[in-house]
Amino acid sequence: MTEAIKKKSVKTGLPPGSLIHIGVKKKESVEIKVFSYTENSFKEQLIEIKDLEQLIFDKSASYWIAVEGIHDVDVIKRLGDVFGLHPLVLEDILNTEHRPKIENYDKYTYVVAKMLLYDDELAQFTTEQESFILAENYVISFSERNTEIYEKLQDRIRQGGSHIGKAGADYLLYSLLDVIVDNYFNVLEKLSDEIELAEDELISNPSPDTLKIIHKFKIQMLYMHKAVWPLREVISVLERNEISFVKESTSIYIRDLYDHIIQIMETVETLRDILSSMLDMYLSSISNRMNEVMKILTIISTVFIPLTFIVGIYGMNFKYMPELNSIYMYPIVWIIMISIAVLMLAFFKKKKWW
Amino acid sequence: MTEAIKKKSVKTGLPPGSLIHIGVKKKESVEIKVFSYTENSFKEQLIEIKDLEQLIFDKSASYWIAVEGIHDVDVIKRLGDVFGLHPLVLEDILNTEHRPKIENYDKYTYVVAKMLLYDDELAQFTTEQESFILAENYVISFSERNTEIYEKLQDRIRQGGSHIGKAGADYLLYSLLDVIVDNYFNVLEKLSDEIELAEDELISNPSPDTLKIIHKFKIQMLYMHKAVWPLREVISVLERNEISFVKESTSIYIRDLYDHIIQIMETVETLRDILSSMLDMYLSSISNRMNEVMKILTIISTVFIPLTFIVGIYGMNFKYMPELNSIYMYPIVWIIMISIAVLMLAFFKKKKWW
Amino acid sequence: MTEAIKKKSVKTGLPPGSLIHIGVKKKESVEIKVFSYTENSFKEQLIEIKDLEQLIFDKSASYWIAVEGIHDVDVIKRLGDVFGLHPLVLEDILNTEHRPKIENYDKYTYVVAKMLLYDDELAQFTTEQESFILAENYVISFSERNTEIYEKLQDRIRQGGSHIGKAGADYLLYSLLDVIVDNYFNVLEKLSDEIELAEDELISNPSPDTLKIIHKFKIQMLYMHKAVWPLREVISVLERNEISFVKESTSIYIRDLYDHIIQIMETVETLRDILSSMLDMYLSSISNRMNEVMKILTIISTVFIPLTFIVGIYGMNFKYMPELNSIYMYPIVWIIMISIAVLMLAFFKKKKWW
Amino acid sequence: MTEAIKKKSVKTGLPPGSLIHIGVKKKESVEIKVFSYTENSFKEQLIEIKDLEQLIFDKSASYWIAVEGIHDVDVIKRLGDVFGLHPLVLEDILNTEHRPKIENYDKYTYVVAKMLLYDDELAQFTTEQESFILAENYVISFSERNTEIYEKLQDRIRQGGSHIGKAGADYLLYSLLDVIVDNYFNVLEKLSDEIELAEDELISNPSPDTLKIIHKFKIQMLYMHKAVWPLREVISVLERNEISFVKESTSIYIRDLYDHIIQIMETVETLRDILSSMLDMYLSSISNRMNEVMKILTIISTVFIPLTFIVGIYGMNFKYMPELNSIYMYPIVWIIMISIAVLMLAFFKKKKWW
Amino acid sequence: MTEAIKKKSVKTGLPPGSLIHIGVKKKESVEIKVFSYTENSFKEQLIEIKDLEQLIFDKSASYWIAVEGIHDVDVIKRLGDVFGLHPLVLEDILNTEHRPKIENYDKYTYVVAKMLLYDDELAQFTTEQESFILAENYVISFSERNTEIYEKLQDRIRQGGSHIGKAGADYLLYSLLDVIVDNYFNVLEKLSDEIELAEDELISNPSPDTLKIIHKFKIQMLYMHKAVWPLREVISVLERNEISFVKESTSIYIRDLYDHIIQIMETVETLRDILSSMLDMYLSSISNRMNEVMKILTIISTVFIPLTFIVGIYGMNFKYMPELNSIYMYPIVWIIMISIAVLMLAFFKKKKWW
Repeated sequence: MTEAIKKKSVKTGLPPGSLIHIGVKKKESVEIKVFSYTENSFKEQLIEIKDLEQLIFDKSASYWIAVEGIHDVDVIKRLGDVFGLHPLVLEDILNTEHRPKIENYDKYTYVVAKMLLYDDELAQFTTEQESFILAENYVISFSERNTEIYEKLQDRIRQGGSHIGKAGADYLLYSLLDVIVDNYFNVLEKLSDEIELAEDELISNPSPDTLKIIHKFKIQMLYMHKAVWPLREVISVLERNEISFVKESTSIYIRDLYDHIIQIMETVETLRDILSSMLDMYLSSISNRMNEVMKILTIISTVFIPLTFIVGIYGMNFKYMPELNSIYMYPIVWIIMISIAVLMLAFFKKKKWW
Repeated sequence: MTEAIKKKSVKTGLPPGSLIHIGVKKKESVEIKVFSYTENSFKEQLIEIKDLEQLIFDKSASYWIAVEGIHDVDVIKRLGDVFGLHPLVLEDILNTEHRPKIENYDKYTYVVAKMLLYDDELAQFTTEQESFILAENYVISFSERNTEIYEKLQDRIRQGGSHIGKAGADYLLYSLLDVIVDNYFNVLEKLSDEIELAEDELISNPSPDTLKIIHKFKIQMLYMHKAVWPLREVISVLERNEISFVKESTSIYIRDLYDHIIQIMETVETLRDILSSMLDMYLSSISNRMNEVMKILTIISTVFIPLTFIVGIYGMNFKYMPELNSIYMYPIVWIIMISIAVLMLAFFKKKKWW
Repeated sequence: MTEAIKKKSVKTGLPPGSLIHIGVKKKESVEIKVFSYTENSFKEQLIEIKDLEQLIFDKSASYWIAVEGIHDVDVIKRLGDVFGLHPLVLEDILNTEHRPKIENYDKYTYVVAKMLLYDDELAQFTTEQESFILAENYVISFSERNTEIYEKLQDRIRQGGSHIGKAGADYLLYSLLDVIVDNYFNVLEKLSDEIELAEDELISNPSPDTLKIIHKFKIQMLYMHKAVWPLREVISVLERNEISFVKESTSIYIRDLYDHIIQIMETVETLRDILSSMLDMYLSSISNRMNEVMKILTIISTVFIPLTFIVGIYGMNFKYMPELNSIYMYPIVWIIMISIAVLMLAFFKKKKWW
Repeated sequence: MTEAIKKKSVKTGLPPGSLIHIGVKKKESVEIKVFSYTENSFKEQLIEIKDLEQLIFDKSASYWIAVEGIHDVDVIKRLGDVFGLHPLVLEDILNTEHRPKIENYDKYTYVVAKMLLYDDELAQFTTEQESFILAENYVISFSERNTEIYEKLQDRIRQGGSHIGKAGADYLLYSLLDVIVDNYFNVLEKLSDEIELAEDELISNPSPDTLKIIHKFKIQMLYMHKAVWPLREVISVLERNEISFVKESTSIYIRDLYDHIIQIMETVETLRDILSSMLDMYLSSISNRMNEVMKILTIISTVFIPLTFIVGIYGMNFKYMPELNSIYMYPIVWIIMISIAVLMLAFFKKKKWW
Repeated sequence: MTEAIKKKSVKTGLPPGSLIHIGVKKKESVEIKVFSYTENSFKEQLIEIKDLEQLIFDKSASYWIAVEGIHDVDVIKRLGDVFGLHPLVLEDILNTEHRPKIENYDKYTYVVAKMLLYDDELAQFTTEQESFILAENYVISFSERNTEIYEKLQDRIRQGGSHIGKAGADYLLYSLLDVIVDNYFNVLEKLSDEIELAEDELISNPSPDTLKIIHKFKIQMLYMHKAVWPLREVISVLERNEISFVKESTSIYIRDLYDHIIQIMETVETLRDILSSMLDMYLSSISNRMNEVMKILTIISTVFIPLTFIVGIYGMNFKYMPELNSIYMYPIVWIIMISIAVLMLAFFKKKKWW
């Protein structure tokens, strides 16, 4: 999270709309793929930025211009010129630490969303930014790296014949967001598996490491919340037909997407509640263990300390100690000591200490 | 809960409306029962999916098409074709992990609710999904297994003469939801009995198991909340007469149902507060017990440690120790030691340690 | 609270409006008292249910029909027939575990409120349900037992000449609710006295029993909240002139009643905050006491354990131990031991342990 | 707080508008001061209640009728008759435990506010009630004791020439409320000084008394919140020009007052957060100290217990113990014991225990 | 924070609009800089307060009057006269402890914001107040000290040719607020770096100092929240075009600023959650360490206490103790003692204590 802050501060004092890439360069070179399709036809091109202007837009077809890699400020600037994007939009596209939002402009709508990438080894996710420009008949997507996450979607476009072919650019934006949201389910599935593991471990063998894991997942849930909660607003705006580029027929799908977001939010909340309850359990398991330790110490101490005192008595060197000369005293002392020990243990037994 | 997430993730990348059954198959085969009734007549059929299309709908009668078992995607698809259901609705019917919701379409209204099944042995409930399609004169119910929970309702339809016979499909939907909500009361009754038991145990004999039980019921309350809270919105929508299929005369009953939901929500909240208070009590009972243990250890130790020191003194082997030769010293040492012990105990008595 | 749940579950599967008394029978027989009064006249009758129909309603007078005891389903049913009450209303009257609410029907308004009965011995209250039917010129009150709580109000009606005589049925309903709300102040007064006692005890002599008392009052505050919070909505509806039977001139009194409810809510919230703060104090007082115990143990142990070691040294039986033969060693050892003890105690003094 | 409740309960069963003084009598006799002023003139009278009716109201002047002492029910009743106040208003004026509120009547507006009096010795405040009646050209103020708090305001009126002279009764009400709110800043300043002191003490030398102080200030903040929060609503109503007696030109001043209230609320919230954080610190400082105590006990015990065992061995009286006869064993045992002690201390050093 | 309160209280009883400087004098003398610029021209003057009236305002140019230092009441009063500012506005400008707000007057809009100054040494920030007057074609800024924080912005104005030159006074206000908000990112970056450091330290080596640092940052976050949260409302008012001086074309930039504020708020919330989680970790790390200490004590005590008892037995001086004469008993006792020690250690090993 501190990343977002650190990046931002390099821009203090610069005028708004200053184009600076904020984030880590995650791809060697910027690639621009153009998918153009109608209900029946399909064409896929890998084009140079300089050829973009020659691209002829056929009003009856839908276009998906997928920009992979956003670290090259010049490319983004050229794109902005070609499609008439506002400098503030370009600034936000380049700032990979932006929160999800939707902004409506005259000729296009700008959407920011967060893609979560789960790292199996570290059992945590990282966040990448996806920006989208939705216009009459095209969608421009800006990804931080290549778009393999959209592969199945691309296949559906390539194969043709599905609803996507005839449904237009707004449905394409919905499909892209649907991929992102479906991916949230993947990440949540993996996280909740890990949390379940931690819960089992907490019950069988709580350790300070369990606490660190709880702490880690709490932070992860914070970030998840930060990525998903504003997206809810974005999709709500899309659903309410406030955006002219979104057709009535697509609304029903966006409502479905909204349902998914709500379900994710609820799951995140539930996981947070479970983590809180786990923390309570952990803290009281520490107390319980301390109790166990104390009991053992107390049993041993209280049994042997009086006995040690007794044997100490007859270790004294007084000239005049009548008991010492009696032949019966040694066994009698043993009997006394065993009685004390038995009584003590009975007392602890009654207290249910063991 | 993690179930819901796991199931969902198999669908990543598929187009919306892809029909996949998400959940566990809980019934061997799908059965479709049709109840058709008017105020005076009643007919009950068990029909095949292929005969469904031949079913003649009499506008003056009400129909309840009860689908038991939803794991067969083909059957659901056929039903969708016959009744003109949107693919997204079919997808949601098949997804048994959906949250309660209401969706209004032109020709029908789609309602999702959660049925809670209490398992007496484990003292916890599982959740099953009930979907309903409400149209002008019929209700289609989709249950994960057989509908014995609705048996008393079916009897009332069979016997005829009651309000249900003349009240139409909207009243039937109300009656079905009423059965589900009444069942929540059953489950809550059993859970609150168990919580009361745990509360008694907590006061008489708190143990780490009590904590696990508190943890378990907290999670159960979380799931209860998740099932009931969104249903409140569903019933609120039904009550506000926003759905054209719901007649004014049924509204009063739905308002009553809404009251029940609110009462359940309040009880769930109260139980959560009680569980929180129980956790506080448990944690402080641990601290109290630790205190008890510490006190016993401290009493025994502080009484005997000084005494053991004294007997140690006269166990020393110095050639020149005048006390050792005195005939009175041994009894004097005893008197000193008993005095110390009595003073110590008096001190602890004053401190109210025993 | 579990009571409310248990009672409710017997009704699963029954049609709505099934009349079953839910609750404990608190009075031998049902009695119906009728007070009819105008500004100048007053009449009080004890009538049988069968004579109720003969009761002639004079449009210029106000009537208070006080039903004491609601366990007799037949009586309630007859009453419902005579006054044209909806079966759902009758069902709610019989269900003594209903939450406070207001429902507006064409010919009457139905109000549910909770009466709190404080038990001085147990220092806790029980809840009883009061239902009211407000119509043009009469109020029907349904109480679980006799209405002695309304005695002073009845006296005011009997004496005549006061505002109540000329103010109509809506003002009568206000007066009844005012008695109930004033009684909340009584109960709160007693509870806050008890809480103050517990607070004093907590400061002077905290014990595990204090904790149980805090727990008890927290639960009591939960129930208080449950009784009062929904009543706020009820009175708010009455005040907003949404109910046609409530005259403008009565509104000002209901606004006053609303103020009282708000004051009660605030007091309940304050008491809850105080109880929370008391719990914090209790928990830290336990920790403090544990600290005291530990300090005593540590002082005694750390002073005597080294000394016991020293006397142990000279209790060894080595043939060759030069110190043992010196005449000065015994007093020297004493000096060493006293020095160690004094230093230890000085150390603990510096640490402010005593 | 329990005061408010106790006082209230004496009125159970009485009709609304019954005039009973609830509170403590804080002044010997009731005094009524009348300030009449225009932009240029000023007159101050101390009048008897019986002369009040003769008071001639000049429409072009503003009047401030300051009633000091409200325990005399007859005086209040007479005042109510003279100015046509509703019995419910009189009842509220007499009830010194009312929460702040504003009520609009046809001919006047009734405002209740709370004056806080800080007691330097006890370091806590008490609450007094100020009621105001605002009409076209006069304000009546009801104070529990004399009005020296308004002295500076009275001076400004006396001196004339300031804005207050020409600004009318609504500006006078604003000025009175402004004095009350400015006084909140005084009280908050003193409380926050005390809290700062407690914070310093908490860091330098936490003791159970610190906890009691935190508890006390938490309760104080609760009461502060109770006095200020409803006043915010009162002033908000005044500002929104809903009250016909408030001129547009005064609105801007009331907006300023509203800002002050918000600032006080924020400060109260901040202080509550600081107190919470202080409680956390206190609890963990207890734990820390316990840790310290335990460490000392453990170091001493674990060093000397093994040594005592060793010296015990050679204190045994076995006939056959070859070591005892060796001339080297005594120093060797010393070397062993010193080594053990050094190793133990090194171990604890490594663990950073000292 | 207590500063804000203390300053405020000196004004009790004074009439509203009394001009008193509340705060610390942070600059020797008051300086007034005037920047006048159009798209192409630029002029910068340092003028005396007495020359201000001679300043000719050219309607086609934009003016920025930067007042550095606000402790001189006379200067502020003169400025107020020249620009027709309301006395309440002047009072607020002089009160450096005001919360951020926006107030709309006929001829100008008054905005208060907070500038955060980070002190690297103490790792905490202080707050300074910036007030702005926005009118048709000029902005007056009031800073507590010199305006070097705006240096880059001034350079942009000086260089000309940028958007700011032609965009007017509203865009200038936006730019000033943008500098302030960008500075929040700087401060947050540094604070989150410090918090990260504390988190690392907490995991590697938790100490009571860590707790004090957590406490400090919690308080810092409280103040951050207090500075930023009301600014959100200010900017929201500016964005909603409720202020006539703000042009449509500037709105898009203010929307961007609003986004930044939201991002800062979210970061503050996240940091607060992280600090809470760190406190949990700290508290449980204390418990864990206590556990460790207890375990060592218990292991050493329970192993050696029984052994010491055994050696004590054979230190007794009874005449008749048959074991003492046996030649095998000494080694046998050693074997018994070693066995007991080994068994004890095995027991603790099984309990996973080491």
